[in-house]
Amino acid sequence: MAANSALAGAIQILSVLAWRGDQETTSDMLASSLRTNPVVVRRVLKSLERRGLVEVRAGRHGGVALVRSPAEITLEDIYKAVEPDGSLFALRKRGSPRCRVHLAMKTLLPPVFGEADAAVDRVLRQIKLSTLIEQIR
Amino acid sequence: MAANSALAGAIQILSVLAWRGDQETTSDMLASSLRTNPVVVRRVLKSLERRGLVEVRAGRHGGVALVRSPAEITLEDIYKAVEPDGSLFALRKRGSPRCRVHLAMKTLLPPVFGEADAAVDRVLRQIKLSTLIEQIR
Repeated sequence: MAANSALAGAIQILSVLAWRGDQETTSDMLASSLRTNPVVVRRVLKSLERRGLVEVRAGRHGGVALVRSPAEITLEDIYKAVEPDGSLFALRKRGSPRCRVHLAMKTLLPPVFGEADAAVDRVLRQIKLSTLIEQIR
Repeated sequence: MAANSALAGAIQILSVLAWRGDQETTSDMLASSLRTNPVVVRRVLKSLERRGLVEVRAGRHGGVALVRSPAEITLEDIYKAVEPDGSLFALRKRGSPRCRVHLAMKTLLPPVFGEADAAVDRVLRQIKLSTLIEQIR
């Protein structure tokens, strides 16, 4: 699978917000940090907003703000926002219903794949946004 | 990221080989278990062969065989075969060189992403192909 940079993008957006603190931040500013289109940023902001991490105010005095403090946001929160399904591995959809090995995969693999997901969640849960921000000079 | 079924496919191929034991197995048989094109199976077999997990003999009496016993193959071996780069998350390639947050991401995120990869590797390393096979009835 191609390693995915969606998590890195969302972490960067939230880090810019945390870093700027109370200063007004717009999606255009975020887009310039990411060197991407504001449309892309707004799509990510939608997912972050859905997860209760940011508040996006539209209009002339619009802007983006964190809803929680950076110490209350973990990288797992951010991961779940951008990957709500969050499964690293999937079962194959096709396979012979007459093959015993194929049939067995459907019960043998989900616990393994679930453990892999849980392991990643645990790693990301240990890291707070604030911990990253403290290391930015 | 779309959860990826390449690992499930490769596990199934090796499980069929392990399950059939000394019986002759061809890529056509594997394709029928997976209900996919033999060309797809042969591509996966190439990766497994490159990783020293199977031996593919071409020609009329061609066939596929495990090189090691199922007790000596872990799911991590299979994962590394199908995902030799094996990184779940990537840094963003673009970003403003003038943004301190963007610059910081390049040093702050790799250790986190590396830990996530290592956590998945550990989970997969604990499971042997033989353990899966023993559970197939």
